[in-house]
Amino acid sequence: MRALLIDPELTLHNDYPDPAPAPGESIVRVRIAGICGTDLELARGYMSYRGVPGHEFVGEVVDTQTGALAGRRVVGEINAACGRCVWCQDGLGRHCPNRTVLGILGRDGAFAEYLRLPDENLIALSDSITDELGVFVEPVAAAYEIFEQSKLRRDHKIAVLGDGRLGALTAIVLRAEDYAPLLAGHHRDKLDRLAALGLEVQLEDRLEPGFDVVIDCTGHSAGLNRALALVRPRGKIILKSTAAAGASLNLAKAVVNEITIVGSRCGRFAPAIAALASGKVDPRPLISAVLPLDDAPAAFAAAGRSPNFKVLLKP
Amino acid sequence: MRALLIDPELTLHNDYPDPAPAPGESIVRVRIAGICGTDLELARGYMSYRGVPGHEFVGEVVDTQTGALAGRRVVGEINAACGRCVWCQDGLGRHCPNRTVLGILGRDGAFAEYLRLPDENLIALSDSITDELGVFVEPVAAAYEIFEQSKLRRDHKIAVLGDGRLGALTAIVLRAEDYAPLLAGHHRDKLDRLAALGLEVQLEDRLEPGFDVVIDCTGHSAGLNRALALVRPRGKIILKSTAAAGASLNLAKAVVNEITIVGSRCGRFAPAIAALASGKVDPRPLISAVLPLDDAPAAFAAAGRSPNFKVLLKP
Repeated sequence: MRALLIDPELTLHNDYPDPAPAPGESIVRVRIAGICGTDLELARGYMSYRGVPGHEFVGEVVDTQTGALAGRRVVGEINAACGRCVWCQDGLGRHCPNRTVLGILGRDGAFAEYLRLPDENLIALSDSITDELGVFVEPVAAAYEIFEQSKLRRDHKIAVLGDGRLGALTAIVLRAEDYAPLLAGHHRDKLDRLAALGLEVQLEDRLEPGFDVVIDCTGHSAGLNRALALVRPRGKIILKSTAAAGASLNLAKAVVNEITIVGSRCGRFAPAIAALASGKVDPRPLISAVLPLDDAPAAFAAAGRSPNFKVLLKP
Repeated sequence: MRALLIDPELTLHNDYPDPAPAPGESIVRVRIAGICGTDLELARGYMSYRGVPGHEFVGEVVDTQTGALAGRRVVGEINAACGRCVWCQDGLGRHCPNRTVLGILGRDGAFAEYLRLPDENLIALSDSITDELGVFVEPVAAAYEIFEQSKLRRDHKIAVLGDGRLGALTAIVLRAEDYAPLLAGHHRDKLDRLAALGLEVQLEDRLEPGFDVVIDCTGHSAGLNRALALVRPRGKIILKSTAAAGASLNLAKAVVNEITIVGSRCGRFAPAIAALASGKVDPRPLISAVLPLDDAPAAFAAAGRSPNFKVLLKP
C-alpha cells in the first residue's frame, strides 16, 4: 500500500506492506487523516518514532471479526491497551504501560491507505458526522480532557497560549462550554482568523500576568516559562505541549508561587463525539487544505506554516 | 550590630546598622537561627538577594508597641504582607505581591544580632518549646504545607527525593502523620543517620519507578527530571526545590503521563508549633552543629557538607 514513513526522514512509500489482521483487531481503510503538531514533532525526532505517523482519522472497516463494525465508518481511540493491567482494569487504558499508540508508539498510523486497531478502539460514526468533522474527534477529545482533570470555574481568567491547531481547538471547546478564554499567540494572521470565529484573541507579548489558569498549547517546552510568568500565585497551568526538544527551565517560581502544573494528553472520545454531532463544537473553519496522501511531504510543510491550521490528507 | 551579609559575597560585618523600629513592627534580638538550603542558594545568587540572610529563628522581643509581645520569646512568619490586597484579605499574605520576606526578599534576616518584623508575624512560644526546637518551626511548617495543598492517602507509595535538611524534615513530618515515605538520596552517611531515626531510606539510584507521589526536596532544578522518571502515570510530584540555576527539562513526560506537579513553599506556623510542642515531631537529632555568628562563613560551609544536616548560629 501507499504510506508515509518516518525512517527517520519523512518518505512516501508505494509498496509498504498492508497491515495484517491480528486477533481482535480490524483493518480500516483510511478515508481522511489530520496532521497534528505531534506529527510534526515526531518528524523532528520526538519519541524516536519509526513507522507510519498519523493518529487523527476517519476510516471504513474493511476486514473484521466483529459484525457490528463491518463496513462502518469509524474513528479510533489511539491507545491500544493490554486489557489486563491495573490501568486497564480501572478504565485508564490510555495509561496502560504495555500500550501501543497509533502512529506514535509501536503501531503504524493513519497516513497510509490502511491501518489496524483493536475492535474495542473503534467507534462507528453516525451519518451526521461527516469525514471533515469526524477527523477532529481525537484532538477535540484532547481538549475535553482538560475538564476531566481540572475543575475550572466560569469566572476564571483563562489564557490559552499558542495560536496553532491545539490552541485554537482548546479555545473553541472552552467557548462552547461557556468559559471565556483569551487565546494568545505570535501570528497576527492566525489570530485574525480566530477572531473572525468569535474567539477573544491577543498578541502574546501584550498579555499581562494574573491569569487563574494558563493552558500551554505552544508546542514548545519553553512555553512553560511564559505560562509561569502569566499565572497568578496559587494558579494552575495546564500543559498540553509535547516537543522533541527540552528547554532551560527553572521552576523556582512554581515553588515560590505554589503553582499547580497539570500534564494533559488524550481524552475520552464520547464527549467530543457528542459535541461535534450536536454542532456545539464546529472546528471545520480550521481546515486550511485537503491534500492527497501523495502530497504528504508538502502537506507536512504546509501544516508548519502560518496562517495554516489543520491540513488533512486523503489516501 | 554584627550581621552576616550577602553583597554579593558572604561577609561578616561588625558595624551593620541596627534595624530601626517601624510602625506596627517590633525589634527582636535573635537567640538562635538555622541555616537552610535556601540560604546556601541565596549565597549562590538565587533571587539576586542583597542583605542579611536567615529566616529560621527564635528571638526575644526587645522593642515593641504591642504589650503582649514585650520580652517574649518568639518565632516569626517570614512573609511580611501589605494587609490590604486581595491576597491578604483572603488570609494568604504568604502570596501578597507587595510582601517582603525575611532574609529572602527586601528585608534583612536573622543572621544578625537583631531583626524587625511586623507584630502580626510574631508568635510567642511557650516554655515547652526550647530554642533548639523552636528554630525548626519555619521549616516544619513548610513540610506541613504539603497537606494543605494536596490530599495524600495513607496507602500512597511516597518517595521523598533528597537526603538534605528539607528532605529529612519532610520525611519526619510524613512519618509523624502516619504516612510511610521512602526517603532517597545520594549520601550513604546521611541515609544511615536518617535510618537510625526510624526512617525508611534508600540510595536514590536504586529506586524503581511507580510512586504515587514524589516529593522533590533535592534543592536542584534537575530533581524534577528524576521525579518525572519515578512517578506513576496520573501521579503527583510535589516540588519543594528552589535553586539559583535552571536545568534542561522536557516536560513531555508530564504531558504524556498526565502528571500533576504542585509547587509548595511556606506553610502556616500553627500546625508546626502544635506538632513540635506535643513531641509528635522532634527534629533535634538533625542538629549537626551550633556555632557563634562570628563563625557564620564556616557554618555556611559546614551546612553544605555531608553528613551535616542543620547548622545553627548563635549571635
